[in-house]
Amino acid sequence: MTARVLVVDDIAANVKLLEARLMAAYFQVISANSGQEALDICARSPIDIVLLDVMMPGMDGFEVCQRLKADPNTAHIPVVMVTALDQPSDKVSGLEAGADDFLTKPVNDLALTTRVKSLVRLKMVTDELRLRADAGTDMGIDQLLVAGIDDKIGERGRVLVVDDRVSSYERLVKTLSLEHDVTVITDPQEALFSAAEDGYELVVMSTGLENFDVLRLCSQLRSLSRTRMLPLLLVANPGEDAMLIRAIDMGVNDYILRPVDQNELVARVRTQIKRSRYNERLRESVQQTVEMAIRDGLTGLNNRRYFDSHLESAFDKAQSGGKPLSVLIVDIDHFKQVNDVHGHEAGDDVLREFAKRIGKNVRNLDMACRYGGEEFVLLMPETDIELACIVAERMRREIAAHPFIIDGGTKQINITVSVGAACIDGNSDSKKALMKRADDALYSAKRNGRNQVVSDAA
Amino acid sequence: MTARVLVVDDIAANVKLLEARLMAAYFQVISANSGQEALDICARSPIDIVLLDVMMPGMDGFEVCQRLKADPNTAHIPVVMVTALDQPSDKVSGLEAGADDFLTKPVNDLALTTRVKSLVRLKMVTDELRLRADAGTDMGIDQLLVAGIDDKIGERGRVLVVDDRVSSYERLVKTLSLEHDVTVITDPQEALFSAAEDGYELVVMSTGLENFDVLRLCSQLRSLSRTRMLPLLLVANPGEDAMLIRAIDMGVNDYILRPVDQNELVARVRTQIKRSRYNERLRESVQQTVEMAIRDGLTGLNNRRYFDSHLESAFDKAQSGGKPLSVLIVDIDHFKQVNDVHGHEAGDDVLREFAKRIGKNVRNLDMACRYGGEEFVLLMPETDIELACIVAERMRREIAAHPFIIDGGTKQINITVSVGAACIDGNSDSKKALMKRADDALYSAKRNGRNQVVSDAA
Repeated sequence: MTARVLVVDDIAANVKLLEARLMAAYFQVISANSGQEALDICARSPIDIVLLDVMMPGMDGFEVCQRLKADPNTAHIPVVMVTALDQPSDKVSGLEAGADDFLTKPVNDLALTTRVKSLVRLKMVTDELRLRADAGTDMGIDQLLVAGIDDKIGERGRVLVVDDRVSSYERLVKTLSLEHDVTVITDPQEALFSAAEDGYELVVMSTGLENFDVLRLCSQLRSLSRTRMLPLLLVANPGEDAMLIRAIDMGVNDYILRPVDQNELVARVRTQIKRSRYNERLRESVQQTVEMAIRDGLTGLNNRRYFDSHLESAFDKAQSGGKPLSVLIVDIDHFKQVNDVHGHEAGDDVLREFAKRIGKNVRNLDMACRYGGEEFVLLMPETDIELACIVAERMRREIAAHPFIIDGGTKQINITVSVGAACIDGNSDSKKALMKRADDALYSAKRNGRNQVVSDAA
Repeated sequence: MTARVLVVDDIAANVKLLEARLMAAYFQVISANSGQEALDICARSPIDIVLLDVMMPGMDGFEVCQRLKADPNTAHIPVVMVTALDQPSDKVSGLEAGADDFLTKPVNDLALTTRVKSLVRLKMVTDELRLRADAGTDMGIDQLLVAGIDDKIGERGRVLVVDDRVSSYERLVKTLSLEHDVTVITDPQEALFSAAEDGYELVVMSTGLENFDVLRLCSQLRSLSRTRMLPLLLVANPGEDAMLIRAIDMGVNDYILRPVDQNELVARVRTQIKRSRYNERLRESVQQTVEMAIRDGLTGLNNRRYFDSHLESAFDKAQSGGKPLSVLIVDIDHFKQVNDVHGHEAGDDVLREFAKRIGKNVRNLDMACRYGGEEFVLLMPETDIELACIVAERMRREIAAHPFIIDGGTKQINITVSVGAACIDGNSDSKKALMKRADDALYSAKRNGRNQVVSDAA
């Protein structure tokens, strides 16, 4: 866990101090002595984290932060505001400017390295998701993925407080309830269970739990796949440094020391939730985008690219396991006429409805895909040719029996399909040969008058 | 950095020993006392890492490892073989069975926690890329992404050795050269530069560098974006535990102690390269898949989904910066006739060639996309309506002047296009209104006889 840290301060002595401490922890340090210089550096070289002094002549820290966060090219760089201890309102202003964290002067060593580490770790996840690593020449993808991500920020968060001392949790709840929905659980094991089940966005844990090591709970939360990404914040006592270092190393995201400063608590909680929502949406966006790449946009079925890759693994699995694998190629009869007579909209209606009906006829194990135009393929693992033909015949009959509705429900037309079926044939068979036999069978079905199932065994 | 660790050993005392040590480091431990039980546990619950004893009655550790690696559902779980010190050949057999790392009995505390940590960290990157986090119900995506990833494994690796003692690096080179292309650089700063520029797959660093702290080099390598993912392996001396803990914490992937066991070195290097290639390909695969989702398959231009998202940000940018933004909607005249007279193949030829010609007429700043069917859109930032019309007119003329070649070069046909142009109009304008004006202009162009450019200003 190391990183390129940009230290921004107009007073050279402050820069030197932070620089020395960060370098001792093996961070790479770059420095700037004005807001403008900081912006220039971030624009032209990769920076992992910015430590930003608030009070600077000319452009102050808040403005620098605002500008960094407003530019899509730098918005993802974590910014830590370095504020004076006697200016608690700075924390709130910093947050409003989009800062990710705060450090109070004089900067404490523990706070400096743990907070920098925690932010760097988080940024690495974000970077991975943003697909920027070297390949990131096409900024467009990146912009597409993060588009609209800010939408839900500002909604109330769902916070779980784990604490067994009434006076302590009552104070936490009072502060947090202003912006979030807060649940308190006093028993750590019950808390673990609830965290995995109840969809919280942050867990706030007290270090003073009776008869229970809070690090054990942190470890359990970080080990379960459902809570691995859940932000964790510790409320600790001064002097628990060694434990906090261990906690951050374990993946705890942030901590706050007692006596709890209300503004700081509000700010830290807000930041954790905001950041976690950002990564959550980014993850969803990547997932959706990948899903789009394997689906046919019109019918929602898998597309041909996906089929080709899936056939490969299904074929290998069938052959190595000595199990049958059947394939059906299904073609809509006289589909060109549907388009010519009723228009392309009607043709699309037919394709969509057809895909729905196919969906009803397949098991979870099977895979249906739109192979191209009006041609569909059904891949059926662990299915011999007899069973494949029964499924195909049932599908054919179902299509022919019920007319298709087009033009927004105003018309209906009769549709039939021809089906070619083939099954894997011994160890010397190949994917290509299998598809060819199904295709030949389909051709026979067409030639014999359509609206029928033909198998390669026939 | 914590995880669910599965400890597999038929001797209960060995299980207890590892369990105690791992739990002290706050890992979650599950145990199994036979190979079959281990396979069952991995199949039904998420495991982050497996510590696997070699010598077990019935199914031995090699077979368990082989089976885990052969099943696509468990292949990504890192496996550490726990071998006896007097069986160096076990390391090689373990590697052949697909193991990711080795520990020798009696297991040393440092080796145990650092190796487990390093593997867990790597698995988290892989998990993120595999998009398994919770959403991973569609196993198909996962299979698609990893399909064909093993192809290049076995090729010679490119290894950089950083060491300034001749006797030491000569021995490393001799061993590594059997399987890899090895370069030695004695100066750490030169090594850093070369690592960033010369495409190595692994850096092997000696801890005994004269006048240079090797951790500084590790930190630099982990901070540069081009070397951030590069596997790093330290060759250390016994007694350098504190330094090694720090190194692993910093992101160094593995280490080996002097005197260097040749088999172990070969095995560790091979594993690092294999694993890094896997993640590299996975990253490429995700990237490609995401790219596919934003492109039109036929023409290679961006698709409508991408355009919609891009328009949003381009529009906001233009409005906030007070700059013009123009849009052209380009429609191929009488395209239906091309399809009807010459067939769909010819229609596709025309669309592809048309996309190419558009490509020649746009600047890097512009964005061309296939909006649907025979309709294309060109988005032109910082372009007023006069300039947009000049570009449109040039494009229209270029299309009409040179016939399109179809049917594999045997025929050519004349194609014309109609273009509607519009430009952002003040602060009260909206994306929707802008697109509507361009569409209305296109409609006028069609109604006025096609093969012409009409702007909303006209």
